[in-house]
Amino acid sequence: MICEKMVGLVKGSSAIRAMFEEGQKMAAIYGAGNVYDFSLGNPNVAPPEAVKDAVMDLIQNEDPMRLHGYMSNTGFASTREAVANSLNRKYGTHYDAGNVIMTVGAASGLNVVFRSLLNPGDEVITFAPFFAEYRNYVANYDGVLVEISPDTATFQPKLDEFAEKITARTKCVLVNSPNNPTGVIYSAETYRRMAAILNEKQKEFGTSIYLITDEPYRELVYGDVEVPFVPDFYKNTIVGYSFSKSLSLPGERIGYLVIPSEVDDFADVYGAASVANRILGYVNAPSLFQLVVERCLEETTDISYYERNRNTLYEGLTKLGFQCIKPDGAFYLFMRSPMEDEKAFCEIAKKYHILIVPGSGFGCGGYVRIAYCVAYETIVNSLPAFAKLAEETL
Amino acid sequence: MICEKMVGLVKGSSAIRAMFEEGQKMAAIYGAGNVYDFSLGNPNVAPPEAVKDAVMDLIQNEDPMRLHGYMSNTGFASTREAVANSLNRKYGTHYDAGNVIMTVGAASGLNVVFRSLLNPGDEVITFAPFFAEYRNYVANYDGVLVEISPDTATFQPKLDEFAEKITARTKCVLVNSPNNPTGVIYSAETYRRMAAILNEKQKEFGTSIYLITDEPYRELVYGDVEVPFVPDFYKNTIVGYSFSKSLSLPGERIGYLVIPSEVDDFADVYGAASVANRILGYVNAPSLFQLVVERCLEETTDISYYERNRNTLYEGLTKLGFQCIKPDGAFYLFMRSPMEDEKAFCEIAKKYHILIVPGSGFGCGGYVRIAYCVAYETIVNSLPAFAKLAEETL
Repeated sequence: MICEKMVGLVKGSSAIRAMFEEGQKMAAIYGAGNVYDFSLGNPNVAPPEAVKDAVMDLIQNEDPMRLHGYMSNTGFASTREAVANSLNRKYGTHYDAGNVIMTVGAASGLNVVFRSLLNPGDEVITFAPFFAEYRNYVANYDGVLVEISPDTATFQPKLDEFAEKITARTKCVLVNSPNNPTGVIYSAETYRRMAAILNEKQKEFGTSIYLITDEPYRELVYGDVEVPFVPDFYKNTIVGYSFSKSLSLPGERIGYLVIPSEVDDFADVYGAASVANRILGYVNAPSLFQLVVERCLEETTDISYYERNRNTLYEGLTKLGFQCIKPDGAFYLFMRSPMEDEKAFCEIAKKYHILIVPGSGFGCGGYVRIAYCVAYETIVNSLPAFAKLAEETL
Repeated sequence: MICEKMVGLVKGSSAIRAMFEEGQKMAAIYGAGNVYDFSLGNPNVAPPEAVKDAVMDLIQNEDPMRLHGYMSNTGFASTREAVANSLNRKYGTHYDAGNVIMTVGAASGLNVVFRSLLNPGDEVITFAPFFAEYRNYVANYDGVLVEISPDTATFQPKLDEFAEKITARTKCVLVNSPNNPTGVIYSAETYRRMAAILNEKQKEFGTSIYLITDEPYRELVYGDVEVPFVPDFYKNTIVGYSFSKSLSLPGERIGYLVIPSEVDDFADVYGAASVANRILGYVNAPSLFQLVVERCLEETTDISYYERNRNTLYEGLTKLGFQCIKPDGAFYLFMRSPMEDEKAFCEIAKKYHILIVPGSGFGCGGYVRIAYCVAYETIVNSLPAFAKLAEETL
């Protein structure tokens, strides 16, 4: 009796649940310490102390009717202004509260954008490998996700194929950097060339093409690598952000959209996003956590923790002979499967109690994703198991 | 450049904003105390102290990785179990955690249900007057909202017309009691007859018709009137609930769905709702407030406050000669407009600094909605203004 669109999704979801349950079962049999579960992108570093302080202060001193009450569908003006000011300080932009919409995490922000922009059949281009949920977010509004094949040498977007696949129906381009599942950061040169292509194609087709940049990992960057600020490169850019990773608050569902005044039809787009936020049933981002993040915009969780994990895992795996792209950000490592069928490789890995995710779910078969947002001990203890896996498969 | 579906909605939304801004402007000119704004259904009684206590205790003593972390898309098992047990105690049901999905308020719950069940063109029947957003929630998934005309004698559903309008495409029936905008509670007799009709029609068409009951006002009831528990009457019932009103937490976006095991295709429906919760971008209900409501399920805000407002307003208006249906629940009073064109009446009311909402937005022209979730003083002070309005229009 469920709708046709959902039938396949419910099946797929059972497969994910089955994997999760298999992990739980393995932990029960072998002990949690002897199972190396790298399957989930779930932050494992506590939020900064400032989050707790903000909650305590707000709950004791803020008017409860404001703290827990309705506000504009776009969010508290004070929160939106603080977000704008923080971005202005970091990126030299000139945003104000009227460019920001607080959202129920980044996932809702993307849904709001697609609900606002997509007519059925409109195309959204994205670059493999990409976060698997993009397929669903676009399908929710009967859009068509157009995948650009991966450049496995660099995992930067393949821009020649991109230029070829833009059509008169291309409404959005969706990028995610630092990237899930590769940890690669798209370079300034990538964005410069991407913008040139987009500007040319907009002229050719007489259309507006919005570049949507999904940035939940913006602050999770290692060493002195810079994450380019995308609106600097291309006028029709909309930024989606989440505090799930930077403040380790994934369960609280808090993020924002930035819609710069420069985008085509700004007033309509901002107005539509505000309405979409309401009618998709979010109504507004959770009120207490709007006021919490307002006070924690310059805070981050302990990123050095993830960096140590990255270094140890990357060195360990490459020493064993595995081929990996070194991640500059996020908390994922994308490893080449020694076997063409990476699903079979993931199955063999389970023999050694290693849980990793096939790349085909991210539109990039022949690779596997290792989420290293785990205890450091898990990394260290897993390396002998990876050694056995290498012995069997390399 | 926004999608076609949104164009009209953005215009409509500007109209609402214009009204809100007019209220703000009036308050600036005449002083907030001299403007009687009955336009918004925004709780104005503080949450019970137990909410604050729960937040304080959780933030100090709960593991922050659990408190703010991801959990199953359906919500914390402990929260779902507590909700099930609370319902079982109140209604003698036999629910468990596997019948409950925590949602981002009731609005998201309804979106989740419609995303799970509706194929394009499927019909959802509702009874005028009804909450205006239902139109959008159904349109989001290309469903067709079928309105049953109001029975203005009782504001109970008109069941003869209902029976006539059920077709082979009827997938859902959506009810809201205590009702926004009338405050009327649908009677046990109404549900008994409604269930009989639905059972007959399901047999006639060989379909499953789900009765969706939207219950954000379930606890806001005055005197000893009972709110029937709808699943007692009809097997294919899905309950949507929100803590926005009962705990005065509208900004926090926290509610739940109950999908009883008895509904047709239970496993598919529960599975689809869980997936819809994820892919619509809610992902999960806000984590801290799941654990807060888990501890506050037997608490309510101070309902006597709204009851005093209701009594004073109802008595005052009827004494002036206005015709109102006496509300047994929620915090709205639905008043007959003395003029056929109730929009013109609302305009005249503004002359006396009274802001009320035309009934046509709720599918019931000729009436106006007065939201009495305001300060008691606003009620008392507004009565002389209503007296002048009566003099001009009655």
